[in-house]
Amino acid sequence: MTTALPHHDGSGLHAPHTATLGDTVRLRVRIPQGWGPASKVWVRSVQDGEPRYDAAIRRGSAGGWEWWEAAMLVANPVAKYRFLLEEPQTHDDGAAATVASGSTVGRRYWNLNAQGLFNRDVSDSADFRLTAFAPGPEWLRKGTMYQVFPDRFARSAQADDHPTPDWAISCSWEEPVAGTGREASTQFYGGDLPGITDKLPHLEELGVTILYLTPFFPARSNHRYDASTFDSVDPLLGGDQALVDLVEAAHARGIKVMGDLTANHSGDAHEWFVKALADPGSEEAGYYYFSPDHSSYESWWGVPSLPKFNWSSAALRRRFITDDDSVVARWLKPPFNLDGWRIDVGNMTGRLGAVDLNHEVARLIAARVREINPNAALLAESTSDAAPDFTGEHWHGAMSYSNLTRPLWSWLAKDAPNVNFFGSPQAGPNRIPAEDFLATHQDLAAGFSWGVLQNNMNALNTHDTARAATVMIDGGPEVGAVLTFCLPGVPVMFAGDEFGLEGFNGEDSRTPMPWSGSRREHKDLRSLYARLAQLRRELPGLTNGGVRWIHAEGHCLVFVRETPESSVLVFVARDTASVVLDRSVLSKAQLGALLDSPLHQSGTVTSAPSGADGVVSLRSEGVSAGIWAIPGTAIPPHQRSSAAVPATCDAD
Amino acid sequence: MTTALPHHDGSGLHAPHTATLGDTVRLRVRIPQGWGPASKVWVRSVQDGEPRYDAAIRRGSAGGWEWWEAAMLVANPVAKYRFLLEEPQTHDDGAAATVASGSTVGRRYWNLNAQGLFNRDVSDSADFRLTAFAPGPEWLRKGTMYQVFPDRFARSAQADDHPTPDWAISCSWEEPVAGTGREASTQFYGGDLPGITDKLPHLEELGVTILYLTPFFPARSNHRYDASTFDSVDPLLGGDQALVDLVEAAHARGIKVMGDLTANHSGDAHEWFVKALADPGSEEAGYYYFSPDHSSYESWWGVPSLPKFNWSSAALRRRFITDDDSVVARWLKPPFNLDGWRIDVGNMTGRLGAVDLNHEVARLIAARVREINPNAALLAESTSDAAPDFTGEHWHGAMSYSNLTRPLWSWLAKDAPNVNFFGSPQAGPNRIPAEDFLATHQDLAAGFSWGVLQNNMNALNTHDTARAATVMIDGGPEVGAVLTFCLPGVPVMFAGDEFGLEGFNGEDSRTPMPWSGSRREHKDLRSLYARLAQLRRELPGLTNGGVRWIHAEGHCLVFVRETPESSVLVFVARDTASVVLDRSVLSKAQLGALLDSPLHQSGTVTSAPSGADGVVSLRSEGVSAGIWAIPGTAIPPHQRSSAAVPATCDAD
Repeated sequence: MTTALPHHDGSGLHAPHTATLGDTVRLRVRIPQGWGPASKVWVRSVQDGEPRYDAAIRRGSAGGWEWWEAAMLVANPVAKYRFLLEEPQTHDDGAAATVASGSTVGRRYWNLNAQGLFNRDVSDSADFRLTAFAPGPEWLRKGTMYQVFPDRFARSAQADDHPTPDWAISCSWEEPVAGTGREASTQFYGGDLPGITDKLPHLEELGVTILYLTPFFPARSNHRYDASTFDSVDPLLGGDQALVDLVEAAHARGIKVMGDLTANHSGDAHEWFVKALADPGSEEAGYYYFSPDHSSYESWWGVPSLPKFNWSSAALRRRFITDDDSVVARWLKPPFNLDGWRIDVGNMTGRLGAVDLNHEVARLIAARVREINPNAALLAESTSDAAPDFTGEHWHGAMSYSNLTRPLWSWLAKDAPNVNFFGSPQAGPNRIPAEDFLATHQDLAAGFSWGVLQNNMNALNTHDTARAATVMIDGGPEVGAVLTFCLPGVPVMFAGDEFGLEGFNGEDSRTPMPWSGSRREHKDLRSLYARLAQLRRELPGLTNGGVRWIHAEGHCLVFVRETPESSVLVFVARDTASVVLDRSVLSKAQLGALLDSPLHQSGTVTSAPSGADGVVSLRSEGVSAGIWAIPGTAIPPHQRSSAAVPATCDAD
Repeated sequence: MTTALPHHDGSGLHAPHTATLGDTVRLRVRIPQGWGPASKVWVRSVQDGEPRYDAAIRRGSAGGWEWWEAAMLVANPVAKYRFLLEEPQTHDDGAAATVASGSTVGRRYWNLNAQGLFNRDVSDSADFRLTAFAPGPEWLRKGTMYQVFPDRFARSAQADDHPTPDWAISCSWEEPVAGTGREASTQFYGGDLPGITDKLPHLEELGVTILYLTPFFPARSNHRYDASTFDSVDPLLGGDQALVDLVEAAHARGIKVMGDLTANHSGDAHEWFVKALADPGSEEAGYYYFSPDHSSYESWWGVPSLPKFNWSSAALRRRFITDDDSVVARWLKPPFNLDGWRIDVGNMTGRLGAVDLNHEVARLIAARVREINPNAALLAESTSDAAPDFTGEHWHGAMSYSNLTRPLWSWLAKDAPNVNFFGSPQAGPNRIPAEDFLATHQDLAAGFSWGVLQNNMNALNTHDTARAATVMIDGGPEVGAVLTFCLPGVPVMFAGDEFGLEGFNGEDSRTPMPWSGSRREHKDLRSLYARLAQLRRELPGLTNGGVRWIHAEGHCLVFVRETPESSVLVFVARDTASVVLDRSVLSKAQLGALLDSPLHQSGTVTSAPSGADGVVSLRSEGVSAGIWAIPGTAIPPHQRSSAAVPATCDAD
């Protein structure tokens, strides 16, 4: 059995989607009638550094919930807030007490923040956040992303014409990938951009709307994160025209294309670095961190082939970002027309020792991107606790792992997967129960505003990690895919996920695609992904809806994505399990809808009436997932007009 | 019974007291032998934004603990770190398993951060912190502070000569204080600086080493936070010479004196503001935020008498901070020789809307203060979650309430105290059990480095809050005082605490001192405070020692302050309770020492043998506290030379 708790998320049910600095916005919080009616409710915000309390008024009840609403001034670009609830019933460590009218005896206060409900003071770090920053393009938050590592995706006919470069070891498409050692970065399979263009029908069949390419600049490695210039597309990939053709063809199919840019470093063969190394007096020497005698330089993680940019250089800022034909700018403009950038090593960019220019550089990049194309997307990589760098002011969202990928791995881990994770010495993630999945997810997602959370990349795995199929129990990747598609954020397939590819680390995961009956294909998951992408298109709750967790225990997770018009219930299990849902968590009509077949099913899920009054039991046989469309979330009558904020509200 | 858990704090047992950017430091973590030996240990730090793992080596065992040590590069001014512990015994949600040698089966990983031990990934927000900033003067972290609100402390003979100012309502010393309404700020009791000088023997008897004065500048209120000039001492307080005399007399008794400065605003009668208001073209007009038509201005919390400073004004920065004779500077220099500042409204200073110059202004003030006197102290007020503004880079410590005052109030609260807290609409704090006290304390203290934590003001109450005697159960203030003196931080008495004064809010707490048999005196706590200050001087563990929590449940808290030479055990209870301490948490010699009488006792505490092997039971009768000196914490033999970091360590 489950119990509903007071709830708020930043979705349209409870908050405006965007805000302007100085706006007074209406925020709503729902208190389940079974929890006991609150006697008073306030929103507590932090304004210019100081807490402030605004009383909420009771808006009415609907669907088993009391709805309260308060007005809050968006005093700062990141408005932090939580709710303070007064519960009159109990006192003194939970003992029941009679409440004398007007007396303070027995009042108890609860804080509701993005980590849940606390019967004590809490730090501001898990406060909800509403920001005054532009939310990013709709196509991003509503999209389905597909990540391609160009060398390993597809070879076009013309790829055979390219000579093998001097740094490379030429490999046939079926050659095994070296996951470790020097060959990991020099094995050259010769995938190219025309190869990707050829395969666009495959992406379209999967329901992909965003293609994200890892770098396409010339380099001295197969991953190309060591660019030797930012001015041209690697001829081995087909050169500039191949990119023009790919983007055009993708756009024709309604697919956006994002590039990948290293703002933290270049390659040591980069034309700038070559000049910088040769001439300490050159402008380019100022782009990097050289020792006073010019005999050594700072580099990414101490790897000499990746010299680190010195962002205190005004000339670098111009050439990379602000110039008319800067690196950031030119690829977003005709004839290339990229739809945005994913910034590599976003978390380290501009940071070295006592210097921290990270947000300054990010702000500059963001301003330039938006200047060229207000509808472009800007994401950045962050391998650790990402939220502090993702206020929404600059990056729209994070390519992160901490708030979803890692907890998913942990919940769905097989025994002893022995996989690496960004240098972590752990043999693999702990296998944790569903309640710890949720605690980890909420711990590491709490610092994102709702707007940013919707733009974050929800990856099961990427070119920098082990593959889910290697980490997880059998059937785990399917359940994991359901979660990446159904939780707030942009679902990301890494090319090959649809064929169940394996990999024990990032390098090992960069397997050439098993296009035609390759022995590499482990499992054909194409229809699963196509179905999930279709549901994401068809069910507004999956892209717009709030998220309310109903159950998280052991093998089993249940949540709903809610809008007033329609909602979606998601049930996932890593083993045989069952959960009973009653009127405390869903309305009668919503419970009834669960007796229909799910819109999607992985493994085996069943639903059945259980007892009286519409109670429904959901059951998994083994590793399973089910998705149901259910009626929308009832809101009090005078809010029915729209999910938007009512025009008037006297909250005092 | 209690169980020991892996432990680290930033004290000399486990970390260096200070570090320099670029240092490689040794960090130690202790794992209780009863917890099960860890098979591997790493320190995980965040360097330039990226997590990094350094393996620890086992340093040996002592006192029932396995000691591990790792080297960490202090790559950034705030080095964040936590420990990763590999535990080989169990797997799959806790089921026991046989561990195959060399296999990964059954490994489980734990994160140890400033909030405790987690069997899952955690955000970086509660990482331990070691900073490369100067730690602040020793006299601050080893001191005992006494806060004086000058109008209410003592009238000298010459006070009778002062006329009552036009804004004031003259009050006799015994007149009741108005806690609310306009009179709260206009009741004038006429305390002055010579009155404080007269009473220095009282402070000395209490063991006070730091006198903190709320503002002494001329103003139009009894609190004087609305300065009309920063250039002179209010004549009503005795003028400049009275301050010179007070500081000299205090210094002669070994007492430091700190002033109180509003960096967020001035009064509307301030000479700068008068000029600014009259002349929109004046330099002073730029010190404030006027509307374009000069008809209105920003002020603290919308109170027009407190116009807010605009810190983007370079002229204000010079006049207030950087000029030779700036406000910040001149009072720290002869003839005044103040020993430091407490900055009012530190959390709001420099923050307005989209502008956030807070850290910039703080940095500027700090640089100026240290330039004049490297041994001066700089504290700042912060009424919310303070840690994010207190890295140690600028303010040495916080006058905060969130991490200690508030949780203390909650744990020791009487039923329905009905007291205000900085505008919170709550009728009073929830009464919470000891485990929630500890969770709140750790939640809100985790973000402070050890160095900053030691400089924070540990206040039971201040001139801005209700009095503990009004909030707490009978005997609670005594137990609370023990905690403010025995936990890391600088204990603060607010004048009158030693007489058990009451007050339902900040204004109501500013009671004139009950010097001679006043009816206001509720309880003579002078000997309690004098004893606590004496213990703080005599027991190095109370100012230098680490802090390890042994027990936190319901009515009862037990912790130790530890150094290799000597430790201190503190037992506090809010009601009758007992706790059994055994060899899992203390050594045999430490347990034995608990059978002696405590060095201090409030209420009634008893200790007695309980069972075999030196097990000791501590018991309180009602609200009680006990402090015992116990033998120091054993460290592995080769660490004995000092608590400092060993010269060599091969951590790989």
